[in-house]
Amino acid sequence: MYIPTFQDVLDAHERIRPYIHRTPVLTSSYLNEVTGAELFFKCENFQKAAAFKARGASNAVFGLTEEQAAKGVATHSSGNHGLSLSYAAGRRGIPCTVVMPRTAPQAKKDAVKGYGGRVVECEPSTSSREAVFAEVVAETGAEFVHPYNDPRVIAGQGTCSRELNEQVEGLDAVIAPIGGGGMISGTCLTLSNVNPGVKIYAAEPQQADDAARSFRAGHIIADDAPETVADGLKVPLKELTWHFVQKHVTDILTTEEDEIVEAMRTIWKRMKIVMEPSSAVPLAAILRNKDVFKGKRVGVVITGGNVDLDKLPWMKG
Amino acid sequence: MYIPTFQDVLDAHERIRPYIHRTPVLTSSYLNEVTGAELFFKCENFQKAAAFKARGASNAVFGLTEEQAAKGVATHSSGNHGLSLSYAAGRRGIPCTVVMPRTAPQAKKDAVKGYGGRVVECEPSTSSREAVFAEVVAETGAEFVHPYNDPRVIAGQGTCSRELNEQVEGLDAVIAPIGGGGMISGTCLTLSNVNPGVKIYAAEPQQADDAARSFRAGHIIADDAPETVADGLKVPLKELTWHFVQKHVTDILTTEEDEIVEAMRTIWKRMKIVMEPSSAVPLAAILRNKDVFKGKRVGVVITGGNVDLDKLPWMKG
Repeated sequence: MYIPTFQDVLDAHERIRPYIHRTPVLTSSYLNEVTGAELFFKCENFQKAAAFKARGASNAVFGLTEEQAAKGVATHSSGNHGLSLSYAAGRRGIPCTVVMPRTAPQAKKDAVKGYGGRVVECEPSTSSREAVFAEVVAETGAEFVHPYNDPRVIAGQGTCSRELNEQVEGLDAVIAPIGGGGMISGTCLTLSNVNPGVKIYAAEPQQADDAARSFRAGHIIADDAPETVADGLKVPLKELTWHFVQKHVTDILTTEEDEIVEAMRTIWKRMKIVMEPSSAVPLAAILRNKDVFKGKRVGVVITGGNVDLDKLPWMKG
Repeated sequence: MYIPTFQDVLDAHERIRPYIHRTPVLTSSYLNEVTGAELFFKCENFQKAAAFKARGASNAVFGLTEEQAAKGVATHSSGNHGLSLSYAAGRRGIPCTVVMPRTAPQAKKDAVKGYGGRVVECEPSTSSREAVFAEVVAETGAEFVHPYNDPRVIAGQGTCSRELNEQVEGLDAVIAPIGGGGMISGTCLTLSNVNPGVKIYAAEPQQADDAARSFRAGHIIADDAPETVADGLKVPLKELTWHFVQKHVTDILTTEEDEIVEAMRTIWKRMKIVMEPSSAVPLAAILRNKDVFKGKRVGVVITGGNVDLDKLPWMKG
């Protein structure tokens, strides 16, 4: 297992700069008042393909040799990683195949195709996904880019907190959502090098709290088919992300479903930005643990903005 | 009738700087591709009180003498001006009364109160509003700040295009929605001084096209109770705003209701920002008149972000 270094983050940043946005940091005097902290929202919902995943995907795609690139890239993801890999491959002009369950929303399939990617459908089971994915790779020779358990991807995600640390002086803490742990790992990698005094918190839905339970147990525990409104956070940690989590994370804070929806609505209402439920988990965790953050300068990663505008979570029922 | 000068805009900018945001300008490669133009969105939805109206209201409030200020300010508005005036008065620590129809949404009344303003209800008719408002002024001696037909307000709104012109080089045109004409008048005032080659377009719902008809007729025509999803744009021009419109506006472009909703949804989906229907009218107008803007660098004013998240227009029916 190759563990990416901070030099990999610096290399990634040079490599991907033409293909990603240096996203803005927004503040809200209302949310500062309500939380008692100073919050700095790093808006990756404004990123290319509307998620931080464009960083890691671009790093993987643009790091390929010409020979590798000619065969294209492939992944399995019904979320932002598939979209971002398709975006990055489109920018390099190479083939991209995304294996998705046939039950995934049509809008997500269309979005991948919109960037020029090819969607190959599988049945909604792990065995079918693995079989179909193996076929794709055997046929095309495409390079597999894992959504998070990949040093190239983690180094790419590490560019986000590098920017944040340049944009905000005197950070005391950074909090980001945790699913597979790619963003948190990149954050750990970067901040432990450039600003090791910054505490790193992960935020997770209680209903998909595998990372929090792993953190307490001292080894990876995977959830069995978790269900949460924060649909980007259902995936489990893997060895590479676990390495960073156990080494550098101060705590993993969990939140309830209604707190996530309420935090999401508050951000939309007060900050006037469109972001997805997963991105609201950090604010929900701050509101639930005000004592931890009181008086602190806290970076909050808004991870993405891909949400179905016809099915907003506060509209349910 | 005192017609504000560009010096009034400069004075306003100095006066209100501590109380307003210099809002960011966002771009979208997708929308550039679709329109064939280069669009620069001036995001006043991120402004204090979530609308450009905070500029004019702050200029009026902070320009008062101590003696005037002690008596407070008053207005009639169920929209962004009432909210913004309450915001500005709150920052100065003076009383603010907003006369609103009792039928106005509770959320709007609560928002005014949230900034410390007082809401006085009237019946939903012009005669009741005028009678109640006269009482308020007689009781309090408060300074009336009209939503747009006021030189202090127009000078304040003019600070928006001053920033835009600094933020974007080589603008060919600016387009903003037109209701009463405060934003357009401020834009005319500023650009005719700092960058007179820039063409100024106003965008208006066909269902509330009093400004377009006035523009063609050469005199003010008021609509009779217009109905449009762009609820900020129902009010008519008045003499001061008409002065600027007839003198400096290149054209007034109208758009249909479904085009406004579609443009709003496109901006939410692609740019990941929350903005109100009125703010989508310019993009709808550009999409309807691509030839006018093709190859041009166009500033687009996103006027505000106050929208009911429970009743988004594409959710109707």
